[in-house]
Amino acid sequence: MPDQSARPTREELQAWRAFLRAHARITRSLEAELVAEQRLSLGGYDVLVQLAEAPERKLRMAELADAVLLSRSGVTRLVDRLERAGMVARERVAGDGRGVVATLTDQGLDVLRIASTTHLAGVVRHFVARLGADQLRYLGDLCDQLVD
Amino acid sequence: MPDQSARPTREELQAWRAFLRAHARITRSLEAELVAEQRLSLGGYDVLVQLAEAPERKLRMAELADAVLLSRSGVTRLVDRLERAGMVARERVAGDGRGVVATLTDQGLDVLRIASTTHLAGVVRHFVARLGADQLRYLGDLCDQLVD
Repeated sequence: MPDQSARPTREELQAWRAFLRAHARITRSLEAELVAEQRLSLGGYDVLVQLAEAPERKLRMAELADAVLLSRSGVTRLVDRLERAGMVARERVAGDGRGVVATLTDQGLDVLRIASTTHLAGVVRHFVARLGADQLRYLGDLCDQLVD
Repeated sequence: MPDQSARPTREELQAWRAFLRAHARITRSLEAELVAEQRLSLGGYDVLVQLAEAPERKLRMAELADAVLLSRSGVTRLVDRLERAGMVARERVAGDGRGVVATLTDQGLDVLRIASTTHLAGVVRHFVARLGADQLRYLGDLCDQLVD
């Protein structure tokens, strides 16, 4: 039974809020750039990336919701929008009445290739370039430790 | 004109993804606990906190969207839900035909007090307790440096 009376100290809470603030600021900048240049949301980009990296570029909807690094709750709506834009297709799973997989279309892959140029340049500018190489490595290690 | 051809190295991209993954995992755990115990989403909690810390517990909708640390785009919908639950009230700004402020109600403050016990215990468990004191301080410093 976890301790429900534990509270962070003022300093610990500052670190937590700094973490949230950094995430919010960086993802907002990346989102604004993607929308301006490619009319694609960051959540939409996240979905395309996860599908592109999956075997046969397919994932069940539940797997996709687990894989995305941003808005899990909005995945169904995101896929709706990407499907209307021709970037993703939904298919029934043979022999599984309730199973639906999302597939990346060729058009989706093309959009992802172009959008990734914008996005990765943004990751360099808003994240990588703000820290030294040792700092960046250490930040990655700390983040890995947070989810171990 | 920012360099649009910059790409992160494999190691830099690993650090970025570790950062996103840590944020996603921790906020999902915090959200699940808040919903289970208080039927309040993490985004809703974020809105209540920002209003509680504002002068007179009021913020214009645009100020609120800037202040929240989570979903900025969903703020209008979040406030709709919190208003229906009696935790937030919307008021017109006198002398400004288009201005609307959101105010934290007494009931909202009561809910926030109870929910913050759940939430802060979760911040200790999923974030603070996973790192040493020096690591936590350094993580906060790195995150501050990311948004400077």
